[in-house]
Amino acid sequence: MHRIGVLIFPGFELLDVFGPMEMFGLLPDKYELCMVAETPGPVASNQRLSAYAEHGLHDDDTYDILFVPGGAGTRKEIGNRPLLRWIAEVSAQAEYTLSVCTGSALLARAGLLDGRKAATNKSAFSWVEEQGPKVKWQRQARWVEDGPFITSSGVTAGMDMALGAIALMHGQDTARDVARWCEYTWQEDKTNDPFARMYGLV
Amino acid sequence: MHRIGVLIFPGFELLDVFGPMEMFGLLPDKYELCMVAETPGPVASNQRLSAYAEHGLHDDDTYDILFVPGGAGTRKEIGNRPLLRWIAEVSAQAEYTLSVCTGSALLARAGLLDGRKAATNKSAFSWVEEQGPKVKWQRQARWVEDGPFITSSGVTAGMDMALGAIALMHGQDTARDVARWCEYTWQEDKTNDPFARMYGLV
Repeated sequence: MHRIGVLIFPGFELLDVFGPMEMFGLLPDKYELCMVAETPGPVASNQRLSAYAEHGLHDDDTYDILFVPGGAGTRKEIGNRPLLRWIAEVSAQAEYTLSVCTGSALLARAGLLDGRKAATNKSAFSWVEEQGPKVKWQRQARWVEDGPFITSSGVTAGMDMALGAIALMHGQDTARDVARWCEYTWQEDKTNDPFARMYGLV
Repeated sequence: MHRIGVLIFPGFELLDVFGPMEMFGLLPDKYELCMVAETPGPVASNQRLSAYAEHGLHDDDTYDILFVPGGAGTRKEIGNRPLLRWIAEVSAQAEYTLSVCTGSALLARAGLLDGRKAATNKSAFSWVEEQGPKVKWQRQARWVEDGPFITSSGVTAGMDMALGAIALMHGQDTARDVARWCEYTWQEDKTNDPFARMYGLV
């Protein structure tokens, strides 16, 4: 059983969180999902609807997987030192650290991605680059795996990444089962990223 | 501005709700999202993580769009007469009524789909059929439009349907913009449904 710490903060992007959590959540014998926030309780997303965090952040938190979404709220959280320290400490203990969209800006600011390859949102690409000048940002990638860090491009890329992470941990067939259960046409090739061209990044 | 009443109940399917709400939520000048539940507050999904409903159900509720997700919780809610009555009354006043996955079983039990074409989840197809013997259930469809009712197949089909609904209300280009913003390869053809064959329905 992998316990996933799912970080949310005001202005998180709805689907960054709930796309991947749908996928992991369809394997309840393999993944336990824990939603965490600085202030437990309802947390408003970038789309205004709120998710509910049952857990706060504590110094001794440990999760097998740390999950960090993006969203407009990251613009504020890149300056939140206690949060960045918590991310760094939990990531150091975790088997995997995952991010979606501009969530990788938070990982970069927490000092976790220096020298590593990482993906991020296309429309905010240059802003994210500034948050981690030593990161090897990938302009064309659906998602990127580098050691314990698995980072995806914008929003819906998180679903493809989550299935990729499931494949890594439990095999391709398990990931394909999950995709079929939720009637999802999984983009299995993490290098296939048509949006890089659409946004003029290649 | 369209106000969307987003119904949630214990055991709702996470992505049934938050896939479409990501899409509508990216057009804040066109859609206002209101999460509603019989008991306001945190409501646990089928994936255990909770969403937060700010609004309860009231006899005089009116929404421009009623949105009903599916999930394992529908097995219980098909017997919830006050909820079905609320669905019927709000739908009667709404411009559009949308469902994802087994959400169409609730619309059927509320008596809304008799004689109409509708889509639903593939793996629960025969169970849903039993909930509405007079509904023209479509075995192969990503989503179906019939009058004010727009119903989708399982889970991720809801995202394609939401973009289809946006196209209906605001044009194809607006829907394509939303898809690009969230780096989503929209399945624009509502008749293209590879899962019907996978599940032996055709």
